[in-house]
Amino acid sequence: MHAMHTVGILGASGYTGVELTRLLANHPGVEVVALGSDRWVGDSCARHTGVIGALGARRYVAPTDAAFARCDVVLMATPAEASIAAAPAHLARGARVIDLSGGFRLRDAGAYPAWYKLEHASPALLAEAVYGLPELRRTAIAKARLVANPGCYATAATLALAPLVAAGAVDKGSLVVDAMSGTTGAGRQAAEAHSFAEVAEDARAYRVFAHQHTPEIAQALGAEVVFTAHLIPVRRGILATVHAKLAAGVDAASIADTFEAVYGDEPFVVLAKSPEDVTLHAVVGTNRCLIGCAVKGRDVIVTAAIDNLLKGAAGQAVQNLNVLLGMPETTGLGGMRPWH
Amino acid sequence: MHAMHTVGILGASGYTGVELTRLLANHPGVEVVALGSDRWVGDSCARHTGVIGALGARRYVAPTDAAFARCDVVLMATPAEASIAAAPAHLARGARVIDLSGGFRLRDAGAYPAWYKLEHASPALLAEAVYGLPELRRTAIAKARLVANPGCYATAATLALAPLVAAGAVDKGSLVVDAMSGTTGAGRQAAEAHSFAEVAEDARAYRVFAHQHTPEIAQALGAEVVFTAHLIPVRRGILATVHAKLAAGVDAASIADTFEAVYGDEPFVVLAKSPEDVTLHAVVGTNRCLIGCAVKGRDVIVTAAIDNLLKGAAGQAVQNLNVLLGMPETTGLGGMRPWH
Amino acid sequence: MHAMHTVGILGASGYTGVELTRLLANHPGVEVVALGSDRWVGDSCARHTGVIGALGARRYVAPTDAAFARCDVVLMATPAEASIAAAPAHLARGARVIDLSGGFRLRDAGAYPAWYKLEHASPALLAEAVYGLPELRRTAIAKARLVANPGCYATAATLALAPLVAAGAVDKGSLVVDAMSGTTGAGRQAAEAHSFAEVAEDARAYRVFAHQHTPEIAQALGAEVVFTAHLIPVRRGILATVHAKLAAGVDAASIADTFEAVYGDEPFVVLAKSPEDVTLHAVVGTNRCLIGCAVKGRDVIVTAAIDNLLKGAAGQAVQNLNVLLGMPETTGLGGMRPWH
Amino acid sequence: MHAMHTVGILGASGYTGVELTRLLANHPGVEVVALGSDRWVGDSCARHTGVIGALGARRYVAPTDAAFARCDVVLMATPAEASIAAAPAHLARGARVIDLSGGFRLRDAGAYPAWYKLEHASPALLAEAVYGLPELRRTAIAKARLVANPGCYATAATLALAPLVAAGAVDKGSLVVDAMSGTTGAGRQAAEAHSFAEVAEDARAYRVFAHQHTPEIAQALGAEVVFTAHLIPVRRGILATVHAKLAAGVDAASIADTFEAVYGDEPFVVLAKSPEDVTLHAVVGTNRCLIGCAVKGRDVIVTAAIDNLLKGAAGQAVQNLNVLLGMPETTGLGGMRPWH
Repeated sequence: MHAMHTVGILGASGYTGVELTRLLANHPGVEVVALGSDRWVGDSCARHTGVIGALGARRYVAPTDAAFARCDVVLMATPAEASIAAAPAHLARGARVIDLSGGFRLRDAGAYPAWYKLEHASPALLAEAVYGLPELRRTAIAKARLVANPGCYATAATLALAPLVAAGAVDKGSLVVDAMSGTTGAGRQAAEAHSFAEVAEDARAYRVFAHQHTPEIAQALGAEVVFTAHLIPVRRGILATVHAKLAAGVDAASIADTFEAVYGDEPFVVLAKSPEDVTLHAVVGTNRCLIGCAVKGRDVIVTAAIDNLLKGAAGQAVQNLNVLLGMPETTGLGGMRPWH
Repeated sequence: MHAMHTVGILGASGYTGVELTRLLANHPGVEVVALGSDRWVGDSCARHTGVIGALGARRYVAPTDAAFARCDVVLMATPAEASIAAAPAHLARGARVIDLSGGFRLRDAGAYPAWYKLEHASPALLAEAVYGLPELRRTAIAKARLVANPGCYATAATLALAPLVAAGAVDKGSLVVDAMSGTTGAGRQAAEAHSFAEVAEDARAYRVFAHQHTPEIAQALGAEVVFTAHLIPVRRGILATVHAKLAAGVDAASIADTFEAVYGDEPFVVLAKSPEDVTLHAVVGTNRCLIGCAVKGRDVIVTAAIDNLLKGAAGQAVQNLNVLLGMPETTGLGGMRPWH
Repeated sequence: MHAMHTVGILGASGYTGVELTRLLANHPGVEVVALGSDRWVGDSCARHTGVIGALGARRYVAPTDAAFARCDVVLMATPAEASIAAAPAHLARGARVIDLSGGFRLRDAGAYPAWYKLEHASPALLAEAVYGLPELRRTAIAKARLVANPGCYATAATLALAPLVAAGAVDKGSLVVDAMSGTTGAGRQAAEAHSFAEVAEDARAYRVFAHQHTPEIAQALGAEVVFTAHLIPVRRGILATVHAKLAAGVDAASIADTFEAVYGDEPFVVLAKSPEDVTLHAVVGTNRCLIGCAVKGRDVIVTAAIDNLLKGAAGQAVQNLNVLLGMPETTGLGGMRPWH
Repeated sequence: MHAMHTVGILGASGYTGVELTRLLANHPGVEVVALGSDRWVGDSCARHTGVIGALGARRYVAPTDAAFARCDVVLMATPAEASIAAAPAHLARGARVIDLSGGFRLRDAGAYPAWYKLEHASPALLAEAVYGLPELRRTAIAKARLVANPGCYATAATLALAPLVAAGAVDKGSLVVDAMSGTTGAGRQAAEAHSFAEVAEDARAYRVFAHQHTPEIAQALGAEVVFTAHLIPVRRGILATVHAKLAAGVDAASIADTFEAVYGDEPFVVLAKSPEDVTLHAVVGTNRCLIGCAVKGRDVIVTAAIDNLLKGAAGQAVQNLNVLLGMPETTGLGGMRPWH
């Protein structure tokens, strides 16, 4: 029997942190030995997450608690500035880090002031950080010290477009992504604008031409996109509708073939029969990304759906953890299902 | 042609204040000459309410603005403490006041510390204030200087029970009211607990044995009730399910007869064929209270539904205004309908 | 005092029919003398709509009832096939018709089999029917015998794009429209796929490359669009996010100027400061279309929002009725407001 | 290593059947060898449930399929009539049966026509069936051939009241239960009344004095209750608010003590600090029942919350299965958590 890997979670009280905790409670290969949360210090994990057993009895500690020093891997579900500040010390003592914020996703430190409103405090790490989209980068992830877990919108948009862009099947100048997300994507909120009375029965676009996932998608694809995020009244889930023009000489049939070739063996990317079959219900509660496509004339439409807190955050982080630790990628991620 | 009555609204930016504004925009007998809101001072009414025409062009002013001094009637959609503070001056200059807060609803000043967490600053006015439930008190309302517009839960519970209690048809010691409300009942909220992610797909009881409408209902009925409020994920509407035991010697048939006798000619109380026909959809967007009842053995169940912002607040205030001004009670309150 | 115009509503029990009824209950220039609905024959209007007064007392009749023969104008809120079948007789007896279905929107009878799954039974009327978007066609509407009231998605998309296309400000080959709608857009539904348990917390695209509003938008604009409809868990409202590329030689500033020049005096088109200010809450319950735009590089994004049952159906029909009858366009359409 | 128990699920395509499938996919002690569903015959389990691995690859079969003949235990998530029809044969061949319908819950066959609209076809089994509320009956369940899994409302109401009634702490003639449920409680629905447009933003009581869980609760408690069910716009969860009067001579403190004494060691009953802490969010996605109580004067209020599909159906069935098979009751039921 192999030794268990020790893991700590920073930002354990956020929506993503709670999901991470729940997933790792059922993970056979790791032991969670530190749960960091200023907000819940001293409370039991069971009280806030419903997790039972040993992990349920564990109490939240401050992010600076000594318990983190004995973690083989630290999962950071913290804001970008906090992640950037905390990662170097953990790496220095030899731990590996999976960061769920945007703090290490962009290779260009110069992009941070415009998109994240911060000066990057550890630009040297940006070159080393591996973008944690296992379907595209699993070999690099396996060897990484620092994994930058992708953004939720970026995961959906990139999985929908990367095979087509890489194959040269679509015109790089034609990419448009309209995506909608549930409210947990913004984290816990105490704002009138996020109150039930304001969000229910509403919908809107936000941060038009200014969403921080825009350069992340462009970097992952090697192509610019016009990306627009929308808030809709659901709690979880992202649905992206992606537009492109067929490249010259490419026929419609090759689009579906390209997806099949790239994703046919992926455990967490499922190809739907049509774009209409791609729904939030089919993915919420799972680590799956569901993708469907259709072509008419020169127009390609691809829809992709994920659970923003799972494949778009905590689930993908566990998938990356599995890659990092040399375990099967689905470890601890089976059995979840669509939610009714 | 008669002269228009001039009206001012304090607290015009709250959910209730916006409803009042909308209703009075279509009211043929009054002119709104002052809209008070610290929050929106200087903004046009059209911008926040969608009202068009002259009222739409009116700008919000501070609650202390001189425009209020020329109002025949001041409608106060302010918190209880603000209403208690502002009412005396308006009454002193000869204006009439309709207060939508709980500030003047309880006759006993000594009840305010426990139920409203305040010492009442104008206890002398409590004896004069008329409880503004037109179906029970319209003669007194017509002559009142100060009308205490009922609470939303209290309106539903009192309309459901008052005829039975007054007729001696039910045992006064048996009254139980379980009621559920939409989130606008709590006003505009910037609190994590009221965020969409927390409220959607949730339900809960709140202020058990401690809700401030409890003594208001008891006072209106002349009988104690066990009242429990619940929050459910809708924006508008109150549904009250009311329990009582038949009084000795009373038979089941007399319950429906009592309701018919009391409410048969009321424009805004509608008797449903059964408790199951009483729904939020049937009343939201209208000033109606829908009531249905059933009896089995000695057990009576009455359900009542209202729109918490209309019959439970702004609509009832306009109804009271009509009584005060000697106009037909339905003036400005027709044409609204169930909402889909 | 002028004589009232007599009006009949066919399909009065659908969501749109109920809205029409409610709007016309408050309309000073028309009298509704016939309410047609197979489903509710014999029921009072008050029971299903909450309308009070004379119209509330009116009873629903069969669509073939003689009462329709004395209507100056017949409003048809019926499915396309029913509208196509019923319109000729009303026109023949000299009535004017406003049809809210798609039955008379496309000029090309040959397009009906593919997009509407029907052979058009009155192709000769297609040449005569006037597309009822008052902002673009009010002169023609005023003289029309037969008005084809636009589709909900088509209204939002066309109002967002028509000024730019007409001005040559955008590349005609670059138009992409992603729009989302509430569930009332599909009418009353008895289908598991439309049940609350299936729709709540879900979102999906539907009829990709096959939505019947696609040719309608193309015809109204004189340019092809890639149009995709999405279902989201709200009851009312449409939000369209529209993409285009600036035409050669056009600068960003001219986009906002174009909208201002075309819509500056329109009573029901409101220009928002930015695409993010365009929300369902700002329009639901009103006849307004709210439009916001932004430009970055050569990319234009326009968002537009309407209430699908009002500006997208019944409200626009009343606006057309006002044009037809030579009354101010806002008659009977004021006072509505955003819904909380 | 012990042998796995073979299990079959009838009615595997209902909401409850899907939950059962998901739970048993992660259960270490059983192997699901038959999934019965007329609706999905031939489809893979993965397609409809998101379950992966061997169970995901299993295909749905007809309820009469031979695969059921080799099941040690048959779980019936079928309507009452279907369960009553199917159970005898499985019992006759020596299998054990857990029925999730109401078909075997009432001991009195004569009650079925009134409450279930059916003549019971196997009344002899009613005397043998054990009511499957493990907290009250686990010893009997362990030896049972036929377990009648409780109804969802009945589970919440009974867990809230049974300790107080058994202890003689409350007046048996004073019991009132008002409970609200999400829409999945009614199963998959193709009815206009259950459409999103009709259910969202609505609430109503239903089957007043006629809900079939009323006699079930009375039988479990040995006391009559006035029970009223309400539909609210959530998908999952039941919240029950329960009223009783303290029995003569009982003081308030003893109420909390009684709950602590009865439930202190229960893995799935959690005592909240107050009735306000009992929320759907705290239990949905888990097998827990959360209970809180308060006393004022002689009035007792208890709130209880469960997930209607888990502790109210599938989760409790797995708990019963564990009792039946002599495994720890929490097997396969850990790790679930509140849902955001």
